[in-house]
Amino acid sequence: MIRSPDNDRLKTIRKLRQKRWREKLGLFTAEGEDLVDAAELAAWEPEFVLRAGEDVEPELLDAVSTLGSGTGVIGVYPRRWADPRGEVLVYLHGVEDPGNVGAIVRSAHALADATVVLGPGCADPFSPKAVRASMGSVFARPPARAPLEALPGRRVALDSGSGDALGEVRLGDGPTVLCLGAEREGLPAEVLEAADAVVRIPLRPGGPESLNVAMAATVALYEVERRMRGHA
Amino acid sequence: MIRSPDNDRLKTIRKLRQKRWREKLGLFTAEGEDLVDAAELAAWEPEFVLRAGEDVEPELLDAVSTLGSGTGVIGVYPRRWADPRGEVLVYLHGVEDPGNVGAIVRSAHALADATVVLGPGCADPFSPKAVRASMGSVFARPPARAPLEALPGRRVALDSGSGDALGEVRLGDGPTVLCLGAEREGLPAEVLEAADAVVRIPLRPGGPESLNVAMAATVALYEVERRMRGHA
Repeated sequence: MIRSPDNDRLKTIRKLRQKRWREKLGLFTAEGEDLVDAAELAAWEPEFVLRAGEDVEPELLDAVSTLGSGTGVIGVYPRRWADPRGEVLVYLHGVEDPGNVGAIVRSAHALADATVVLGPGCADPFSPKAVRASMGSVFARPPARAPLEALPGRRVALDSGSGDALGEVRLGDGPTVLCLGAEREGLPAEVLEAADAVVRIPLRPGGPESLNVAMAATVALYEVERRMRGHA
Repeated sequence: MIRSPDNDRLKTIRKLRQKRWREKLGLFTAEGEDLVDAAELAAWEPEFVLRAGEDVEPELLDAVSTLGSGTGVIGVYPRRWADPRGEVLVYLHGVEDPGNVGAIVRSAHALADATVVLGPGCADPFSPKAVRASMGSVFARPPARAPLEALPGRRVALDSGSGDALGEVRLGDGPTVLCLGAEREGLPAEVLEAADAVVRIPLRPGGPESLNVAMAATVALYEVERRMRGHA
Protein backbone atom coordinates (compact mmCIF):
# COMPACT_ATOMS: atom_id res chain seq x y z
CA MET A 1 0.00 0.00 0.00
CA ILE A 2 1.43 3.35 -1.11
CA ARG A 3 1.35 5.83 1.77
CA SER A 4 3.71 8.56 0.57
CA PRO A 5 3.09 11.24 -2.06
CA ASP A 6 6.76 10.83 -3.03
CA ASN A 7 6.12 7.35 -4.37
CA ASP A 8 7.56 6.88 -7.86
CA ARG A 9 4.33 5.65 -9.40
CA LEU A 10 2.39 8.65 -8.10
CA LYS A 11 5.15 10.92 -9.41
CA THR A 12 4.86 9.27 -12.82
CA ILE A 13 1.10 9.85 -12.91
CA ARG A 14 1.62 13.49 -12.03
CA LYS A 15 4.18 13.91 -14.80
CA LEU A 16 1.89 12.34 -17.39
CA ARG A 17 -0.42 15.35 -17.26
CA GLN A 18 2.18 17.00 -19.45
CA LYS A 19 2.55 16.18 -23.11
CA ARG A 20 6.35 16.30 -23.00
CA TRP A 21 6.42 13.64 -20.28
CA ARG A 22 3.91 11.48 -22.15
CA GLU A 23 6.20 11.67 -25.16
CA LYS A 24 9.38 11.15 -23.16
CA LEU A 25 8.09 8.17 -21.21
CA GLY A 26 5.83 6.82 -23.97
CA LEU A 27 3.03 6.42 -21.43
CA PHE A 28 -0.38 7.89 -20.66
CA THR A 29 -3.04 7.62 -17.97
CA ALA A 30 -6.67 6.54 -17.87
CA GLU A 31 -8.75 7.48 -14.84
CA GLY A 32 -11.84 5.71 -13.59
CA GLU A 33 -13.28 2.22 -13.75
CA ASP A 34 -14.89 2.63 -17.19
CA LEU A 35 -11.65 3.58 -18.92
CA VAL A 36 -9.58 0.93 -17.13
CA ASP A 37 -12.24 -1.61 -18.16
CA ALA A 38 -12.05 -0.38 -21.77
CA ALA A 39 -8.29 -0.93 -21.75
CA GLU A 40 -8.71 -4.45 -20.45
CA LEU A 41 -11.40 -5.22 -23.03
CA ALA A 42 -8.98 -4.09 -25.75
CA ALA A 43 -6.22 -6.24 -24.19
CA TRP A 44 -4.07 -3.13 -23.75
CA GLU A 45 -1.61 -4.17 -21.03
CA PRO A 46 -1.08 -1.54 -18.33
CA GLU A 47 2.32 -0.51 -17.07
CA PHE A 48 0.59 -0.47 -13.68
CA VAL A 49 -2.85 0.17 -12.17
CA LEU A 50 -3.42 1.83 -8.81
CA ARG A 51 -6.67 1.26 -6.94
CA ALA A 52 -7.71 3.45 -4.02
CA GLY A 53 -7.73 1.51 -0.76
CA GLU A 54 -5.98 -1.52 -2.32
CA ASP A 55 -2.72 -0.19 -3.75
CA VAL A 56 -2.71 3.37 -2.51
CA GLU A 57 -4.26 5.61 0.12
CA PRO A 58 -7.41 7.12 -1.45
CA GLU A 59 -6.38 10.72 -0.67
CA LEU A 60 -3.05 10.23 -2.43
CA LEU A 61 -4.76 8.93 -5.57
CA ASP A 62 -7.25 11.80 -5.49
CA ALA A 63 -4.34 14.21 -5.25
CA VAL A 64 -2.84 13.06 -8.57
CA SER A 65 -6.21 12.74 -10.33
CA THR A 66 -7.16 15.26 -13.03
CA LEU A 67 -10.83 14.82 -12.14
CA GLY A 68 -12.19 17.43 -9.79
CA SER A 69 -14.07 14.75 -7.91
CA GLY A 70 -11.07 12.44 -7.49
CA THR A 71 -11.03 8.84 -8.69
CA GLY A 72 -11.01 5.26 -7.46
CA VAL A 73 -8.52 3.92 -10.00
CA ILE A 74 -5.82 5.17 -12.37
CA GLY A 75 -4.11 3.01 -14.97
CA VAL A 76 -0.86 3.86 -16.74
CA TYR A 77 -0.46 2.49 -20.27
CA PRO A 78 2.07 2.49 -23.08
CA ARG A 79 1.15 4.82 -25.95
CA ARG A 80 0.46 2.96 -29.14
CA TRP A 81 -0.46 4.21 -32.62
CA ALA A 82 -2.47 2.40 -35.26
CA ASP A 83 -1.79 2.05 -38.96
CA PRO A 84 -4.07 4.16 -41.13
CA ARG A 85 -6.29 1.56 -42.74
CA GLY A 86 -9.90 0.47 -43.02
CA GLU A 87 -12.91 1.35 -45.14
CA VAL A 88 -13.40 4.74 -43.52
CA LEU A 89 -10.72 7.07 -42.15
CA VAL A 90 -11.05 10.46 -40.49
CA TYR A 91 -8.12 12.78 -41.16
CA LEU A 92 -7.81 15.77 -38.81
CA HIS A 93 -5.73 18.86 -39.51
CA GLY A 94 -5.08 21.42 -36.77
CA VAL A 95 -7.80 20.21 -34.38
CA GLU A 96 -6.30 21.60 -31.19
CA ASP A 97 -8.97 20.83 -28.64
CA PRO A 98 -8.34 17.49 -26.87
CA GLY A 99 -12.04 17.10 -26.07
CA ASN A 100 -12.87 17.30 -29.76
CA VAL A 101 -10.13 14.85 -30.75
CA GLY A 102 -11.34 12.36 -28.13
CA ALA A 103 -14.99 12.77 -29.10
CA ILE A 104 -14.14 12.15 -32.76
CA VAL A 105 -12.25 8.97 -31.83
CA ARG A 106 -15.38 7.79 -30.05
CA SER A 107 -17.81 8.68 -32.85
CA ALA A 108 -15.52 7.12 -35.47
CA HIS A 109 -15.39 3.90 -33.47
CA ALA A 110 -19.13 3.83 -32.75
CA LEU A 111 -20.49 4.78 -36.17
CA ALA A 112 -17.99 3.40 -38.65
CA ASP A 113 -15.31 1.39 -36.83
CA ALA A 114 -13.06 4.03 -38.40
CA THR A 115 -9.51 5.02 -37.55
CA VAL A 116 -8.77 8.67 -36.81
CA VAL A 117 -5.58 9.93 -38.45
CA LEU A 118 -3.87 12.95 -36.92
CA GLY A 119 -2.22 15.42 -39.26
CA PRO A 120 -0.26 18.50 -38.18
CA GLY A 121 -1.33 20.67 -35.25
CA CYS A 122 -3.72 18.26 -33.53
CA ALA A 123 -4.15 17.78 -29.79
CA ASP A 124 -2.55 14.73 -28.18
CA PRO A 125 -5.19 11.95 -28.16
CA PHE A 126 -3.49 10.48 -25.09
CA SER A 127 -3.99 13.52 -22.85
CA PRO A 128 -6.30 12.89 -19.87
CA LYS A 129 -9.02 15.06 -21.39
CA ALA A 130 -8.89 13.36 -24.80
CA VAL A 131 -8.85 9.87 -23.30
CA ARG A 132 -11.88 10.74 -21.20
CA ALA A 133 -13.75 12.26 -24.17
CA SER A 134 -13.04 9.08 -26.16
CA MET A 135 -14.85 7.11 -23.44
CA GLY A 136 -12.22 4.43 -23.87
CA SER A 137 -12.43 4.17 -27.67
CA VAL A 138 -8.80 5.29 -27.77
CA PHE A 139 -7.98 1.75 -26.58
CA ALA A 140 -10.24 -0.06 -29.03
CA ARG A 141 -9.38 2.14 -32.04
CA PRO A 142 -6.16 4.03 -31.31
CA PRO A 143 -5.48 6.90 -33.73
CA ALA A 144 -2.82 6.87 -36.44
CA ARG A 145 -0.37 9.59 -37.37
CA ALA A 146 0.24 10.19 -41.05
CA PRO A 147 0.38 12.90 -43.67
CA LEU A 148 -2.65 13.13 -45.94
CA GLU A 149 -0.58 12.03 -48.97
CA ALA A 150 0.12 8.69 -47.31
CA LEU A 151 -3.55 7.77 -46.94
CA PRO A 152 -5.25 5.37 -49.32
CA GLY A 153 -8.64 6.03 -50.89
CA ARG A 154 -10.94 8.84 -51.86
CA ARG A 155 -10.44 12.09 -49.96
CA VAL A 156 -13.62 13.93 -49.04
CA ALA A 157 -12.90 17.34 -47.50
CA LEU A 158 -15.48 19.02 -45.28
CA ASP A 159 -15.68 22.75 -45.73
CA SER A 160 -18.18 25.09 -44.14
CA GLY A 161 -18.47 27.46 -47.09
CA SER A 162 -18.10 25.54 -50.32
CA GLY A 163 -18.78 22.23 -52.01
CA ASP A 164 -21.78 20.02 -52.58
CA ALA A 165 -24.24 19.13 -49.85
CA LEU A 166 -22.92 16.23 -47.75
CA GLY A 167 -25.91 14.10 -48.75
CA GLU A 168 -24.76 14.21 -52.37
CA VAL A 169 -21.27 12.92 -51.64
CA ARG A 170 -20.11 10.29 -54.10
CA LEU A 171 -18.21 7.37 -52.57
CA GLY A 172 -15.61 5.37 -54.47
CA ASP A 173 -14.96 1.64 -54.35
CA GLY A 174 -11.97 1.97 -52.04
CA PRO A 175 -11.62 3.59 -48.62
CA THR A 176 -13.18 6.97 -47.85
CA VAL A 177 -11.03 9.55 -46.06
CA LEU A 178 -13.08 12.27 -44.40
CA CYS A 179 -10.87 15.36 -43.93
CA LEU A 180 -11.69 18.01 -41.32
CA GLY A 181 -9.83 21.10 -40.20
CA ALA A 182 -9.72 23.41 -37.22
CA GLU A 183 -12.86 25.10 -35.98
CA ARG A 184 -12.14 28.59 -37.28
CA GLU A 185 -9.55 28.26 -40.00
CA GLY A 186 -11.01 25.14 -41.60
CA LEU A 187 -8.77 23.08 -43.86
CA PRO A 188 -5.78 24.76 -45.49
CA ALA A 189 -5.98 25.44 -49.24
CA GLU A 190 -3.55 22.65 -50.11
CA VAL A 191 -5.75 20.03 -48.43
CA LEU A 192 -8.89 21.34 -50.15
CA GLU A 193 -7.08 21.28 -53.49
CA ALA A 194 -5.75 17.76 -52.95
CA ALA A 195 -9.26 16.47 -52.13
CA ASP A 196 -11.25 14.32 -54.54
CA ALA A 197 -14.44 15.99 -53.36
CA VAL A 198 -15.38 18.97 -51.19
CA VAL A 199 -18.67 18.79 -49.29
CA ARG A 200 -20.50 20.94 -46.77
CA ILE A 201 -23.11 20.14 -44.14
CA PRO A 202 -26.24 22.12 -45.09
CA LEU A 203 -26.82 24.82 -42.46
CA ARG A 204 -29.70 27.26 -42.09
CA PRO A 205 -29.06 30.72 -43.54
CA GLY A 206 -28.60 33.42 -40.90
CA GLY A 207 -27.33 30.98 -38.27
CA PRO A 208 -23.79 29.91 -37.32
CA GLU A 209 -21.50 29.40 -40.28
CA SER A 210 -20.11 26.13 -39.01
CA LEU A 211 -20.63 23.30 -36.56
CA ASN A 212 -18.20 22.32 -33.85
CA VAL A 213 -15.60 20.07 -35.54
CA ALA A 214 -16.58 17.00 -33.50
CA MET A 215 -20.23 17.49 -34.49
CA ALA A 216 -19.28 17.92 -38.14
CA ALA A 217 -17.14 14.76 -38.09
CA THR A 218 -19.94 12.78 -36.46
CA VAL A 219 -22.56 13.91 -38.98
CA ALA A 220 -20.19 13.11 -41.86
CA LEU A 221 -19.48 9.63 -40.44
CA TYR A 222 -23.21 9.02 -40.04
CA GLU A 223 -23.91 10.06 -43.64
CA VAL A 224 -21.06 8.00 -45.12
CA GLU A 225 -22.20 4.93 -43.17
CA ARG A 226 -25.80 5.53 -44.17
CA ARG A 227 -24.81 5.53 -47.82
CA MET A 228 -22.36 2.63 -47.56
CA ARG A 229 -24.79 0.42 -45.65
CA GLY A 230 -27.82 1.47 -47.64
CA HIS A 231 -29.76 2.65 -44.59
CA ALA A 232 -32.98 4.37 -45.57
CA MET B 1 -11.46 52.93 -15.18
CA ILE B 2 -11.91 50.24 -12.55
CA ARG B 3 -8.71 49.82 -10.53
CA SER B 4 -9.91 47.89 -7.48
CA PRO B 5 -10.82 44.19 -7.23
CA ASP B 6 -13.52 45.26 -4.75
CA ASN B 7 -15.46 47.02 -7.50
CA ASP B 8 -19.12 46.00 -7.52
CA ARG B 9 -19.20 45.02 -11.18
CA LEU B 10 -16.20 42.74 -10.78
CA LYS B 11 -17.83 41.23 -7.69
CA THR B 12 -20.98 40.59 -9.70
CA ILE B 13 -19.02 38.81 -12.44
CA ARG B 14 -17.33 36.63 -9.82
CA LYS B 15 -20.67 35.72 -8.27
CA LEU B 16 -22.16 34.77 -11.64
CA ARG B 17 -19.90 31.73 -11.82
CA GLN B 18 -22.36 30.16 -9.44
CA LYS B 19 -25.75 28.97 -10.53
CA ARG B 20 -27.51 30.24 -7.39
CA TRP B 21 -26.25 33.76 -8.06
CA ARG B 22 -27.26 33.57 -11.73
CA GLU B 23 -30.74 32.60 -10.57
CA LYS B 24 -30.88 35.15 -7.77
CA LEU B 25 -29.67 38.06 -9.91
CA GLY B 26 -31.24 36.85 -13.17
CA LEU B 27 -27.97 37.56 -14.96
CA PHE B 28 -25.18 35.68 -16.71
CA THR B 29 -21.80 36.42 -18.28
CA ALA B 30 -20.33 36.06 -21.74
CA GLU B 31 -16.55 36.25 -22.11
CA GLY B 32 -14.63 37.22 -25.21
CA GLU B 33 -15.24 39.35 -28.28
CA ASP B 34 -17.08 36.64 -30.25
CA LEU B 35 -19.73 36.08 -27.60
CA VAL B 36 -20.21 39.79 -26.89
CA ASP B 37 -20.60 40.30 -30.65
CA ALA B 38 -23.17 37.48 -30.80
CA ALA B 39 -25.18 39.19 -28.06
CA GLU B 40 -25.12 42.47 -29.94
CA LEU B 41 -26.14 40.76 -33.19
CA ALA B 42 -29.11 39.26 -31.35
CA ALA B 43 -29.96 42.69 -29.90
CA TRP B 44 -29.61 41.26 -26.39
CA GLU B 45 -28.98 44.38 -24.26
CA PRO B 46 -26.18 43.95 -21.72
CA GLU B 47 -26.47 44.99 -18.12
CA PHE B 48 -22.90 46.19 -18.60
CA VAL B 49 -19.78 45.31 -20.60
CA LEU B 50 -16.22 45.64 -19.28
CA ARG B 51 -13.35 45.96 -21.72
CA ALA B 52 -9.74 45.47 -20.61
CA GLY B 53 -7.77 48.71 -20.79
CA GLU B 54 -10.90 50.81 -21.41
CA ASP B 55 -13.20 50.13 -18.49
CA VAL B 56 -11.01 48.06 -16.22
CA GLU B 57 -7.37 47.21 -15.58
CA PRO B 58 -6.58 44.13 -17.71
CA GLU B 59 -5.24 42.10 -14.75
CA LEU B 60 -8.43 42.70 -12.80
CA LEU B 61 -10.57 41.46 -15.69
CA ASP B 62 -8.32 38.41 -16.12
CA ALA B 63 -8.74 37.67 -12.42
CA VAL B 64 -12.52 37.30 -12.72
CA SER B 65 -12.39 35.44 -16.06
CA THR B 66 -13.23 31.74 -16.16
CA LEU B 67 -10.88 31.30 -19.14
CA GLY B 68 -7.42 30.06 -18.23
CA SER B 69 -5.90 32.51 -20.66
CA GLY B 70 -7.81 35.55 -19.39
CA THR B 71 -10.02 37.69 -21.61
CA GLY B 72 -10.27 41.12 -23.19
CA VAL B 73 -13.98 41.64 -22.57
CA ILE B 74 -16.77 40.34 -20.36
CA GLY B 75 -20.44 41.21 -20.83
CA VAL B 76 -23.17 40.70 -18.23
CA TYR B 77 -26.66 40.02 -19.57
CA PRO B 78 -30.16 39.38 -18.26
CA ARG B 79 -31.21 35.73 -18.51
CA ARG B 80 -34.08 35.25 -20.89
CA TRP B 81 -35.99 32.10 -21.87
CA ALA B 82 -37.75 31.39 -25.13
CA ASP B 83 -41.17 29.90 -25.74
CA PRO B 84 -41.08 26.32 -27.01
CA ARG B 85 -42.18 26.71 -30.60
CA GLY B 86 -40.99 26.17 -34.15
CA GLU B 87 -40.93 23.32 -36.66
CA VAL B 88 -38.23 21.41 -34.80
CA LEU B 89 -37.65 21.27 -31.03
CA VAL B 90 -35.00 19.42 -29.05
CA TYR B 91 -36.18 18.27 -25.63
CA LEU B 92 -33.42 17.34 -23.15
CA HIS B 93 -33.96 15.28 -20.02
CA GLY B 94 -31.19 15.00 -17.41
CA VAL B 95 -28.37 16.28 -19.62
CA GLU B 96 -26.06 17.43 -16.84
CA ASP B 97 -22.96 18.47 -18.74
CA PRO B 98 -23.00 22.22 -19.55
CA GLY B 99 -20.67 21.69 -22.52
CA ASN B 100 -23.16 19.27 -24.05
CA VAL B 101 -26.14 21.57 -23.43
CA GLY B 102 -24.29 24.49 -25.04
CA ALA B 103 -23.15 22.40 -28.01
CA ILE B 104 -26.71 21.20 -28.61
CA VAL B 105 -27.98 24.81 -28.55
CA ARG B 106 -25.42 25.60 -31.24
CA SER B 107 -26.17 22.58 -33.44
CA ALA B 108 -29.93 23.17 -33.12
CA HIS B 109 -29.49 26.76 -34.23
CA ALA B 110 -27.11 25.93 -37.08
CA LEU B 111 -28.85 22.90 -38.55
CA ALA B 112 -32.54 23.49 -37.94
CA ASP B 113 -33.08 26.92 -36.37
CA ALA B 114 -34.53 24.81 -33.57
CA THR B 115 -35.24 25.72 -29.97
CA VAL B 116 -33.77 23.56 -27.22
CA VAL B 117 -36.22 22.79 -24.41
CA LEU B 118 -34.81 21.87 -21.02
CA GLY B 119 -36.65 19.27 -18.99
CA PRO B 120 -35.68 18.15 -15.47
CA GLY B 121 -32.07 17.67 -14.42
CA CYS B 122 -30.35 19.63 -17.17
CA ALA B 123 -27.29 21.86 -16.80
CA ASP B 124 -27.83 25.61 -16.73
CA PRO B 125 -27.46 26.87 -20.33
CA PHE B 126 -26.33 30.24 -18.95
CA SER B 127 -23.25 28.92 -17.14
CA PRO B 128 -19.94 30.22 -18.55
CA LYS B 129 -19.09 26.80 -20.00
CA ALA B 130 -22.48 26.33 -21.67
CA VAL B 131 -22.50 29.84 -23.13
CA ARG B 132 -19.02 29.26 -24.54
CA ALA B 133 -19.97 25.87 -25.99
CA SER B 134 -23.00 27.48 -27.65
CA MET B 135 -20.60 29.84 -29.46
CA GLY B 136 -23.15 32.58 -28.89
CA SER B 137 -26.18 30.67 -30.19
CA VAL B 138 -27.66 31.00 -26.70
CA PHE B 139 -28.32 34.66 -27.63
CA ALA B 140 -29.79 33.96 -31.06
CA ARG B 141 -31.87 30.96 -29.97
CA PRO B 142 -32.22 30.96 -26.18
CA PRO B 143 -33.51 27.69 -24.72
CA ALA B 144 -36.99 27.18 -23.32
CA ARG B 145 -38.03 25.42 -20.11
CA ALA B 146 -41.07 23.21 -20.26
CA PRO B 147 -42.32 19.74 -19.39
CA LEU B 148 -42.60 17.32 -22.29
CA GLU B 149 -46.40 17.25 -22.01
CA ALA B 150 -46.54 20.96 -22.81
CA LEU B 151 -44.77 20.62 -26.16
CA PRO B 152 -46.68 20.61 -29.44
CA GLY B 153 -46.06 18.08 -32.20
CA ARG B 154 -44.74 14.61 -32.80
CA ARG B 155 -42.34 13.28 -30.15
CA VAL B 156 -39.43 11.28 -31.47
CA ALA B 157 -37.36 9.72 -28.67
CA LEU B 158 -33.75 8.73 -29.26
CA ASP B 159 -32.75 5.54 -27.53
CA SER B 160 -29.44 3.74 -27.87
CA GLY B 161 -30.87 0.24 -27.60
CA SER B 162 -34.29 0.12 -29.18
CA GLY B 163 -36.45 1.51 -31.93
CA ASP B 164 -36.18 1.90 -35.69
CA ALA B 165 -33.10 3.21 -37.42
CA LEU B 166 -33.07 7.03 -37.38
CA GLY B 167 -33.13 7.12 -41.18
CA GLU B 168 -36.55 5.47 -41.14
CA VAL B 169 -38.13 8.04 -38.84
CA ARG B 170 -41.56 9.17 -39.95
CA LEU B 171 -42.26 12.88 -39.61
CA GLY B 172 -45.74 14.30 -39.09
CA ASP B 173 -47.22 17.46 -40.54
CA GLY B 174 -46.73 19.47 -37.37
CA PRO B 175 -43.59 20.17 -35.32
CA THR B 176 -41.06 17.44 -34.56
CA VAL B 177 -39.80 17.15 -30.97
CA LEU B 178 -36.53 15.24 -30.72
CA CYS B 179 -36.18 13.86 -27.17
CA LEU B 180 -32.79 12.94 -25.72
CA GLY B 181 -31.73 11.77 -22.29
CA ALA B 182 -28.62 11.64 -20.18
CA GLU B 183 -25.50 9.92 -21.46
CA ARG B 184 -25.71 6.78 -19.35
CA GLU B 185 -29.27 6.47 -18.17
CA GLY B 186 -30.92 7.51 -21.43
CA LEU B 187 -34.53 8.67 -21.32
CA PRO B 188 -36.73 7.51 -18.44
CA ALA B 189 -39.40 4.92 -19.22
CA GLU B 190 -42.26 7.43 -19.01
CA VAL B 191 -40.71 9.60 -21.73
CA LEU B 192 -40.11 6.59 -23.99
CA GLU B 193 -43.69 5.46 -23.45
CA ALA B 194 -45.11 8.93 -24.14
CA ALA B 195 -43.17 9.17 -27.42
CA ASP B 196 -44.87 8.84 -30.81
CA ALA B 197 -41.78 7.09 -32.16
CA VAL B 198 -38.57 5.64 -30.74
CA VAL B 199 -35.49 5.67 -32.98
CA ARG B 200 -31.84 4.75 -32.65
CA ILE B 201 -28.74 5.88 -34.49
CA PRO B 202 -27.29 2.76 -36.18
CA LEU B 203 -23.97 1.89 -34.51
CA ARG B 204 -21.44 -0.78 -35.41
CA PRO B 205 -21.71 -4.01 -33.42
CA GLY B 206 -18.88 -4.50 -30.94
CA GLY B 207 -18.23 -0.78 -30.53
CA PRO B 208 -19.58 1.75 -28.02
CA GLU B 209 -23.25 1.34 -27.23
CA SER B 210 -24.03 5.03 -27.52
CA LEU B 211 -22.79 8.34 -28.83
CA ASN B 212 -22.13 11.38 -26.69
CA VAL B 213 -25.53 13.10 -26.27
CA ALA B 214 -24.45 16.23 -28.16
CA MET B 215 -23.29 14.06 -31.07
CA ALA B 216 -26.56 12.11 -31.04
CA ALA B 217 -28.63 15.32 -31.00
CA THR B 218 -26.63 16.75 -33.89
CA VAL B 219 -26.99 13.63 -36.04
CA ALA B 220 -30.74 13.52 -35.32
CA LEU B 221 -31.12 17.21 -36.24
CA TYR B 222 -29.20 16.60 -39.46
CA GLU B 223 -31.38 13.64 -40.39
CA VAL B 224 -34.67 15.41 -39.61
CA GLU B 225 -33.59 18.43 -41.64
CA ARG B 226 -32.44 16.21 -44.50
CA ARG B 227 -35.86 14.61 -44.64
CA MET B 228 -37.83 17.80 -44.16
CA ARG B 229 -35.88 19.70 -46.81
CA GLY B 230 -35.62 16.78 -49.18
CA HIS B 231 -31.82 16.83 -49.32
CA ALA B 232 -30.43 13.88 -51.23
